[in-house]
Amino acid sequence: MGHKKIRTALTVDLNKPAWEQPGLHNRWHPDVPACGTIANNEVVKIECLDWTGGQIKNNDSADDVKDVDLTQIHYLSGPFEIETAEPGDVLLVEIQDVQPFEDHPWGFTGVFDKNNGGGFLDEIYPKAAKAIWDFEGIFCSSRHIPHVRFAGLIHPGILGCAPSAEILAEWNRREGELIAASTALQRDVAKPPEPRNAHAGSADESLKEKVAREGARTIPGRPEHGGNCDIKNLSRGSKVYLPVHVPGAKFSVGDLHFSQGDGEISFCGAIEMAGIITLKFTVLKGGMAKMGMKSPIFQPGPVEPQFGPGRYLTFEGFSVDENGKQHYLDATVAYRQTCLRVIEYLRRYGYDDYQIYLLLSCAPVQGHIAGLVDIPNACTTLGVPMDIFDFDIRPEGEAVQLDMGSCAFTSE
Amino acid sequence: MGHKKIRTALTVDLNKPAWEQPGLHNRWHPDVPACGTIANNEVVKIECLDWTGGQIKNNDSADDVKDVDLTQIHYLSGPFEIETAEPGDVLLVEIQDVQPFEDHPWGFTGVFDKNNGGGFLDEIYPKAAKAIWDFEGIFCSSRHIPHVRFAGLIHPGILGCAPSAEILAEWNRREGELIAASTALQRDVAKPPEPRNAHAGSADESLKEKVAREGARTIPGRPEHGGNCDIKNLSRGSKVYLPVHVPGAKFSVGDLHFSQGDGEISFCGAIEMAGIITLKFTVLKGGMAKMGMKSPIFQPGPVEPQFGPGRYLTFEGFSVDENGKQHYLDATVAYRQTCLRVIEYLRRYGYDDYQIYLLLSCAPVQGHIAGLVDIPNACTTLGVPMDIFDFDIRPEGEAVQLDMGSCAFTSE
Amino acid sequence: MGHKKIRTALTVDLNKPAWEQPGLHNRWHPDVPACGTIANNEVVKIECLDWTGGQIKNNDSADDVKDVDLTQIHYLSGPFEIETAEPGDVLLVEIQDVQPFEDHPWGFTGVFDKNNGGGFLDEIYPKAAKAIWDFEGIFCSSRHIPHVRFAGLIHPGILGCAPSAEILAEWNRREGELIAASTALQRDVAKPPEPRNAHAGSADESLKEKVAREGARTIPGRPEHGGNCDIKNLSRGSKVYLPVHVPGAKFSVGDLHFSQGDGEISFCGAIEMAGIITLKFTVLKGGMAKMGMKSPIFQPGPVEPQFGPGRYLTFEGFSVDENGKQHYLDATVAYRQTCLRVIEYLRRYGYDDYQIYLLLSCAPVQGHIAGLVDIPNACTTLGVPMDIFDFDIRPEGEAVQLDMGSCAFTSE
Amino acid sequence: MGHKKIRTALTVDLNKPAWEQPGLHNRWHPDVPACGTIANNEVVKIECLDWTGGQIKNNDSADDVKDVDLTQIHYLSGPFEIETAEPGDVLLVEIQDVQPFEDHPWGFTGVFDKNNGGGFLDEIYPKAAKAIWDFEGIFCSSRHIPHVRFAGLIHPGILGCAPSAEILAEWNRREGELIAASTALQRDVAKPPEPRNAHAGSADESLKEKVAREGARTIPGRPEHGGNCDIKNLSRGSKVYLPVHVPGAKFSVGDLHFSQGDGEISFCGAIEMAGIITLKFTVLKGGMAKMGMKSPIFQPGPVEPQFGPGRYLTFEGFSVDENGKQHYLDATVAYRQTCLRVIEYLRRYGYDDYQIYLLLSCAPVQGHIAGLVDIPNACTTLGVPMDIFDFDIRPEGEAVQLDMGSCAFTSE
Repeated sequence: MGHKKIRTALTVDLNKPAWEQPGLHNRWHPDVPACGTIANNEVVKIECLDWTGGQIKNNDSADDVKDVDLTQIHYLSGPFEIETAEPGDVLLVEIQDVQPFEDHPWGFTGVFDKNNGGGFLDEIYPKAAKAIWDFEGIFCSSRHIPHVRFAGLIHPGILGCAPSAEILAEWNRREGELIAASTALQRDVAKPPEPRNAHAGSADESLKEKVAREGARTIPGRPEHGGNCDIKNLSRGSKVYLPVHVPGAKFSVGDLHFSQGDGEISFCGAIEMAGIITLKFTVLKGGMAKMGMKSPIFQPGPVEPQFGPGRYLTFEGFSVDENGKQHYLDATVAYRQTCLRVIEYLRRYGYDDYQIYLLLSCAPVQGHIAGLVDIPNACTTLGVPMDIFDFDIRPEGEAVQLDMGSCAFTSE
Repeated sequence: MGHKKIRTALTVDLNKPAWEQPGLHNRWHPDVPACGTIANNEVVKIECLDWTGGQIKNNDSADDVKDVDLTQIHYLSGPFEIETAEPGDVLLVEIQDVQPFEDHPWGFTGVFDKNNGGGFLDEIYPKAAKAIWDFEGIFCSSRHIPHVRFAGLIHPGILGCAPSAEILAEWNRREGELIAASTALQRDVAKPPEPRNAHAGSADESLKEKVAREGARTIPGRPEHGGNCDIKNLSRGSKVYLPVHVPGAKFSVGDLHFSQGDGEISFCGAIEMAGIITLKFTVLKGGMAKMGMKSPIFQPGPVEPQFGPGRYLTFEGFSVDENGKQHYLDATVAYRQTCLRVIEYLRRYGYDDYQIYLLLSCAPVQGHIAGLVDIPNACTTLGVPMDIFDFDIRPEGEAVQLDMGSCAFTSE
Repeated sequence: MGHKKIRTALTVDLNKPAWEQPGLHNRWHPDVPACGTIANNEVVKIECLDWTGGQIKNNDSADDVKDVDLTQIHYLSGPFEIETAEPGDVLLVEIQDVQPFEDHPWGFTGVFDKNNGGGFLDEIYPKAAKAIWDFEGIFCSSRHIPHVRFAGLIHPGILGCAPSAEILAEWNRREGELIAASTALQRDVAKPPEPRNAHAGSADESLKEKVAREGARTIPGRPEHGGNCDIKNLSRGSKVYLPVHVPGAKFSVGDLHFSQGDGEISFCGAIEMAGIITLKFTVLKGGMAKMGMKSPIFQPGPVEPQFGPGRYLTFEGFSVDENGKQHYLDATVAYRQTCLRVIEYLRRYGYDDYQIYLLLSCAPVQGHIAGLVDIPNACTTLGVPMDIFDFDIRPEGEAVQLDMGSCAFTSE
Repeated sequence: MGHKKIRTALTVDLNKPAWEQPGLHNRWHPDVPACGTIANNEVVKIECLDWTGGQIKNNDSADDVKDVDLTQIHYLSGPFEIETAEPGDVLLVEIQDVQPFEDHPWGFTGVFDKNNGGGFLDEIYPKAAKAIWDFEGIFCSSRHIPHVRFAGLIHPGILGCAPSAEILAEWNRREGELIAASTALQRDVAKPPEPRNAHAGSADESLKEKVAREGARTIPGRPEHGGNCDIKNLSRGSKVYLPVHVPGAKFSVGDLHFSQGDGEISFCGAIEMAGIITLKFTVLKGGMAKMGMKSPIFQPGPVEPQFGPGRYLTFEGFSVDENGKQHYLDATVAYRQTCLRVIEYLRRYGYDDYQIYLLLSCAPVQGHIAGLVDIPNACTTLGVPMDIFDFDIRPEGEAVQLDMGSCAFTSE
């Protein structure tokens, strides 16, 4: 009788390069060696780096954001072999808790430079910027975005099982075709396999070379396994149902977020942090066929911060772009316009546009598809919880400009 | 001392053709004559037809849906002149109540035929289909989709102020350019002005001819005024802030919905109904400049049905289409995939795909933008409230097929 | 095919004395004749008077409250015979809607004079007072309590089935014993049967005389059938499970409230109104034994106004009375103290104590049992939703006194 | 630049007797020496024992509950001197987090023996009983109460500042008078000062003797400072406003609960645990007069588990006791009846009454004052969240008895 402490399945070292830690990896590939085994129905803690592997510092300059090395990111914890899991099963992962490290009570939100990463609004806001967030228990606030404080909707940005060789080949095919078809665009539309800085955990040299050559980048989520889905609601108490494609599932997790808004619009947009996630694993045999499952499903947890339905100020946006061009039922264009509407509104209180851009990326804003059939306009909405501000943002009130300081910019 | 009944600013006659009623119109144009005047700060009731003007009947055949005349739709109530409103003001409209007509306690959801209207999934589900919903107070249920019952999130699909002549010209320019640029597509991408069946309220013949020739169609919402935004959360208690573009605002409203899901995916997708809306109007002088307003803003009401954050089963979808083609950060493609994932899942309980398609269109499902920056995949989610079903839809349970009957189809 | 308007099972006439209307009654007795029959599974509308039968007027004097005739109250609509219902069954009543009369969009909250009715705080606030509330759709506000506006949690104060003769005898026994044992107290502790102004619906003279002599007063709720339970959460969408004690159930309903706070502390404390309730009746055969039911059970509806858990300012009170006397685990004493704590706090904004007393009676305040075992102190809490005020009531802010006008008092 | 780990202001040793730890105490007295100093606006972590100081073990016998030594309980962490706090100030305590110890992921709920502690229902359930709860992140479940699992509403049962000498004297006067007046009752109505096992922290012998002789017991909450208020909603993110009565405030905290139901009815009724609480302290100068404060006020946090208003099965109870005696507006009697109604109902699924008694004590049930003015009956309600059960408890369904095992009882 009596209870033991929950087992920690992986520890990470914040003071050691990520690529020297065999429990981490930064490519999706079926052959990355498992860094440990977890029993069916077991609960474990798993430690995770922040998604840049520690490149971003707690200071008042965005130089580190501007110069971030994007081949060095997304060092995931894992993969873990889940006992009894086989292809066709569903892996039920219950997210029992997520916490920052006790001696690391802070995180960051960044806007990448348009020429190094970019983001959803980079045509309009091309400069790098940064906000540091201090954690006080469940709350966070930032010296770079005054008059705002909110409870985090803490979650992992990335979780998923390894692809099979067939699925990996399919990813490389279809993303390669997109890249090939998009050469006229002046920007990256996808990231092909990139041997530079690939980390394949404890793989030996020849295996590492294979993973580096074939392995899928971790930036996008993908339908077959989830991955970097960046869903803010995968918070404490959520149950996630993941397709299993390889024996043992080879589950990985990482990219912890203290909070994120729908869209994670600035790309480095969540409140990124290092920390510890507590997970319970249950194998549902033959689940994929039973559920008709092609992509992950989840049930959110019961403890999301609740503001009340009437406590949001909500903005509408449509698929007419900032140049007056009409797009056909394009929800992406509509959501960009919706974000711009919020920025235009919140300026009246004294915030700089970059501060609002950062805030919309990381605060628990609700981005909804509204109407998606009324040709030619898609309509999306973005709800900003009014209670994260310590002043009244309702439109009826007179807007008094406050001293809003500044977010961090680059030194030049 | 003492209180009077709220004034009804417009009555409609459900038994008379819409085009014979001078308080209705079906084009957006600055010159449609006002059908009445409303004082600043006044509360009024306004009666509305259903969006098809009564074309759809309470029966078990979808023939009426298949053969719907889409030039006859969206007969809006109005326009109303709001005293003191001038261009540049913001019109605050509080939605104090929405009710179906007492002697008309039912509504309908339709899937249009691919060749007459279509919908978000028409490539896969090209046939017409229909479900009739019976209202019991705040609840509704359908003989065409058994084992489901829910409280409506009742709202108007359309509300907005008239465009100025300049804005109208801009609409016609940009939508015309889209049409011109899209001739290769096998489908309508927008609806140009269409003289046939135009109704300009009490306009005389020459004015009517002008409105018919120039007037914008009511199908799309548009950024400058809102219009057919189809936002499910504009329910009881909401406050909507609308830009004013012409003297007197010329406010119109219509297309009442007993309930709608995010996206309104089947196009005729809400639970469409005729009924009465109670509105309060307040003019905020010079509001557009003060708020930096380009599109409507709103604050939802406090009485939305609440299921608890953990009572949704949520599905993920990504911007890889059903043919395996990778799209670039396309939230529209991602949302279509998300809808398909729900259909594939709910089949296990015995529902026909068309029943689920109808249900996703009208039940209060939550469609969120999740990640929109992780190139090349957009990720969207769709949360289905589990408590609208009278059986348990959680994945862990064994799925027992129930007798789900059938939705209405066409007679051939 | 096609749907009919919901049947109105009882209409009332607001301009005719209640005692002349045969569909009303104001005593609980098994022999009050049924005023109509309702089928199992039927939905009907039932009209109701306000609980004073129209004695209170929409004006600025509390004279009518002071002089209210409390033998003339609680004219209930019914009783209705529910087909197939027999003793031992459970009657499931779904509250599908509650609405004020369209031409009567107002209600009232009163503080009774200590010598005529009294209330929970009458030792401290002995005077009569009144507030009139105007309804605007789902919202209400009062010229007598400025700077407050909220959505109603609309519900019936009273619903229940008739007692059997045995249960009625038991009520009269036990309440008679309390009265007999409490003669030393200077106040009414219960109301015995009172022939004066008894109304027994359509009973003939001899039956009316019997009902008047034996019938239980309608003021208290009672465990065996519910009755005047004054539970604010029995709002739209609630399902109530009621014990059936006589053949046909003999269901009655009345005392509609636009809103009420937990405790309904001023006795005439809800926002009292006349209106229409829509109910669905379903008989659960043998339900009492199956459920082990001695008192009603209910499941609230999904559309209660939601403020978010963090949007309440909550006050603590303990079972030490205002004279410093320690009571033993007395939740009633504790709740009285809790109410006083709120009054002491809200004074800082300029409200008169009677205004706050009225507000706590009718606004959707949450009164909780907190600790009830820590001898000798019971602890209760009272949560005031901060968002019903149009100014900030958080303790950190500086309290600025506003012009709060006055509630209605008596003329002398 | 950069952030430090939050300071731990007190560590406790679970393996050492509580009375040997100078940072603990178990009496309220102004002279208990401060165990540390906390700056205004500082955030600290404070470790706490469980309320029995470790007397209850993780096993399957309730012998330890039956034999608990109630003079050994409530070892509080503190008192802490808060810099700048003076009598008349208000101490704002933000509860930023509460966590069990990582190596102690379990808690217990007990029913005390009627002759040693008792509880709210001890006349009916006089035996000792126990349930052990295992924590899995934010969730808990018990081998002693199967088919139940829920997220904890984690909070401290006790927090408050030290009484002044005058307030302490008043407590001893009024509670002494109650004891003197209640000798006819067969039970303890309050606990007078008790020198046995008094622990006064680091006090020297003569001071310790004084504290032991005069110090108030920690069992009851008290209006002047809060103390053991046992309010389940003082969870993560709450802000508590506490009156300050002595220089430096002398703040103490303890009795952590993983979860508790309203009323904490079995006395040892929460899920009792040892753990760590993170608090931020802010002194509001002169706050008591500004706020008219006599008792603590609080604002709950935004992350309480949310089930949706319609997800509760709610029971009604009235102030007629189980012997048929009518009590006068007695909310305590009404709440006891309400609890009994739940027990009678849940039996149908196979639970033993003691299992339900334990469950109602610790699960997040909502106990409300409903009507408290309808003479002679008080009405209270108790809402049970249906989603904590893994089977359907709605009344309409057929009740199938499940194998519910047993809670822990005593060995004889």
